[in-house]
Amino acid sequence: MTSFTHDTVPTRYAEGGGIRFAYRRFGMPGRPPLLFFQHFMGTLDDHDPALSDAFAGDREIILFNNAGVASSGGIVPDTIEAMARDAITFTDALGLTTIDVVGHSMGGLVAQEVAIARPDLVRRLVLVGTGPRGGEGIGALPAWVADLFTMKYERQEDMWLPILFAPTRTSQAAGRAYVERIVARADRDAPLSDQSIAAQRAALAAYGAAKDPSYAHLRGLNLPVLVVNGSDDIVIPTINSYILQQFLPDAELILYPDANHGAHFQYPGLFVRHARIFLDQEPAGAGTDPG
Amino acid sequence: MTSFTHDTVPTRYAEGGGIRFAYRRFGMPGRPPLLFFQHFMGTLDDHDPALSDAFAGDREIILFNNAGVASSGGIVPDTIEAMARDAITFTDALGLTTIDVVGHSMGGLVAQEVAIARPDLVRRLVLVGTGPRGGEGIGALPAWVADLFTMKYERQEDMWLPILFAPTRTSQAAGRAYVERIVARADRDAPLSDQSIAAQRAALAAYGAAKDPSYAHLRGLNLPVLVVNGSDDIVIPTINSYILQQFLPDAELILYPDANHGAHFQYPGLFVRHARIFLDQEPAGAGTDPG
Repeated sequence: MTSFTHDTVPTRYAEGGGIRFAYRRFGMPGRPPLLFFQHFMGTLDDHDPALSDAFAGDREIILFNNAGVASSGGIVPDTIEAMARDAITFTDALGLTTIDVVGHSMGGLVAQEVAIARPDLVRRLVLVGTGPRGGEGIGALPAWVADLFTMKYERQEDMWLPILFAPTRTSQAAGRAYVERIVARADRDAPLSDQSIAAQRAALAAYGAAKDPSYAHLRGLNLPVLVVNGSDDIVIPTINSYILQQFLPDAELILYPDANHGAHFQYPGLFVRHARIFLDQEPAGAGTDPG
Repeated sequence: MTSFTHDTVPTRYAEGGGIRFAYRRFGMPGRPPLLFFQHFMGTLDDHDPALSDAFAGDREIILFNNAGVASSGGIVPDTIEAMARDAITFTDALGLTTIDVVGHSMGGLVAQEVAIARPDLVRRLVLVGTGPRGGEGIGALPAWVADLFTMKYERQEDMWLPILFAPTRTSQAAGRAYVERIVARADRDAPLSDQSIAAQRAALAAYGAAKDPSYAHLRGLNLPVLVVNGSDDIVIPTINSYILQQFLPDAELILYPDANHGAHFQYPGLFVRHARIFLDQEPAGAGTDPG
């Protein structure tokens, strides 16, 4: 047990499969640790301290860069499935045997593949702003959305305002508060290389192109899943969250109003309450009332 | 303040517009009272004590029969809008000025019309197993579902098992527990007349037939709404809950797994926790984090 917070915990490194993974680990041991799987172009610094510090009150939080991302070694592979193998290498390097996961956007795709490959490892899964393999518009952004990822800003973190938040006064205000939170940490992560970004883009396109209207792939995810999104996700359209709920064996769906691809950053307090109810419910299993 | 429960509170009557409305009122005064709007063919006895007793711990609960239903006087009108006018007559008869509402199925349609007609009256709205005016398949049941409403049972309340619960072991077990709860009260409500049922059926069909793919009607509902449903609602298909979330100005959506038209009866503990977070959140308003 440490008294570190999101902003004060040192970055550490774990070696596995010839790769040096950068990670930050803090919070209260006891329950299964909660691992956050990061989105396209995201580093350790793009996780929200409002979330990790809130969860850290009663569980361990692990933030990490997957292979080839920012301060981690190795290279970013060009498939989601290979990213999942790298993430499993990382969890094995830490000796983790049971984890809960919050996967956001591309991180939600990787998290699904981890849970399919290692059902013994992942206990419960929270999927935010993401979708199924072969989902609607995944890795096939409209040009105006794709352009948002290459815009230059005086403070580059401001790029997330139109990508993660809705174009309303309320959502943009929540977005500015999020950006203030993520720039607060003094000790910054490294940026992503152009190669890493290109490989992530290729992986997203390939995953989105693997169409199957029956979404049979999701039947391999037999753990309890909480699917969360904003009402109008411009990066991975919100209908994908509905599809996840409809085709996963045991999934709950929560959609928040007036929100986009970063709904959990817009409503951190509400998201933590909802996620805690889901993560801490006993008994597990579809159909039974945990209340 | 009384110590009455769902099962012990006496049925009372309020006069308004020449109609004698039957209702049951109990719980802790203070917050706006929580009114439950009942489903097709439902009486006072079909409300779930697990819900009303849980909510009654920190607010007043009001269950009522709308005009023409069971032990209420008057006749059931053949439009949802006229049912809403009757419900407003009832709330006026009680002198209510601010209410929260849980509307289930047809009761959710009526509750929407009440909130549109009287935005001053309704503070927050929970819509379970329902949909928008002109929604998909509303009042146009497949024959096999319509037949479920006319089946005869030794214990007639068992009719709700295939209508409100999913055909799985877990959901049917939750359904049997619900039926045990609703048959526990000794002092029973009257049954609905055939005329009342026929008028409700006509109202549902007319409301479902009022198609408008832009769902402009929902823009009149400017209050915060929580939409809840099961993953596969056979009476008002689950896609209608998604449509409500997408077209209402300020709506959150929660879908539960392994559940049908009575998801809140399947997960009473979870539903009460989710509904309380929604009902009690401050500040109100889309885009702001109540956590």
